[in-house]
Amino acid sequence: MSDSFKSLESAATGSQTSLDALLGAAKWNADGLIPAIAQQHDSGEVLMMAWMNRAALKETLSTHRVCYWSRSRQAFWRKGETSGQQQHLVEARFDCDGDTLLLKVDQSGPACHTGRRSCFYVKLSENTAEVDQAPLISPDTLYGKN
Amino acid sequence: MSDSFKSLESAATGSQTSLDALLGAAKWNADGLIPAIAQQHDSGEVLMMAWMNRAALKETLSTHRVCYWSRSRQAFWRKGETSGQQQHLVEARFDCDGDTLLLKVDQSGPACHTGRRSCFYVKLSENTAEVDQAPLISPDTLYGKN
Repeated sequence: MSDSFKSLESAATGSQTSLDALLGAAKWNADGLIPAIAQQHDSGEVLMMAWMNRAALKETLSTHRVCYWSRSRQAFWRKGETSGQQQHLVEARFDCDGDTLLLKVDQSGPACHTGRRSCFYVKLSENTAEVDQAPLISPDTLYGKN
Repeated sequence: MSDSFKSLESAATGSQTSLDALLGAAKWNADGLIPAIAQQHDSGEVLMMAWMNRAALKETLSTHRVCYWSRSRQAFWRKGETSGQQQHLVEARFDCDGDTLLLKVDQSGPACHTGRRSCFYVKLSENTAEVDQAPLISPDTLYGKN
């Protein structure tokens, strides 16, 4: 754990530090990325998890429109660019050891590429897994294929 | 994306598959781990993110007491073993592409090793970061140092 996050552990509520110092101390992985959990700010629903590099996070904090880093495309991924279903940032938080982000967002329509509201639609039990959410919109409509 | 998760994308609500087939298709990283988000089941608060290997997930689904894999200790981490603050599983879910877990849990007391309820207590703005939650219990009390 970096000194910067370590020193915040015992800091009083309201204590501040510079964002750049904190980003310098954050635990970016070998590819320079940190996982970011997106949660609908009012309902509390966890919508998805994706990845951010430092530039994507800085852009998101500046524009309030959520920008991830796409590992498959190796490019910025401004959520909603293709589907139109944008994610607006309400609040961003780091965890105690600086290796995970929590984004409270306002998501229009489905967050999932399958057209479902949330990506977490496969519910597990001890021996089986079950799909328990239906798409709000068909993926073909979402991505303009029909 | 594996075929197993791909085929669930267009599956009707209520469709089931075997857990073992799904775990075989999940995207475990090079260390055999998948990130797991823990969310308090009733309040919706996101408490922490940690990692699970296949054995930890199977144990959690069987016992309903959350067991992670500690990357620092390279050992099973049955949440609450040292602090007494256990996490009981209410519901577990995979995301659409099988690379993230969402655990809805019932967490007793603080989830964070700093004694705070949630690990996400560092709120970011464009230029600063601020601690906005106080510990419920001091870490020294939590880990029996006094």
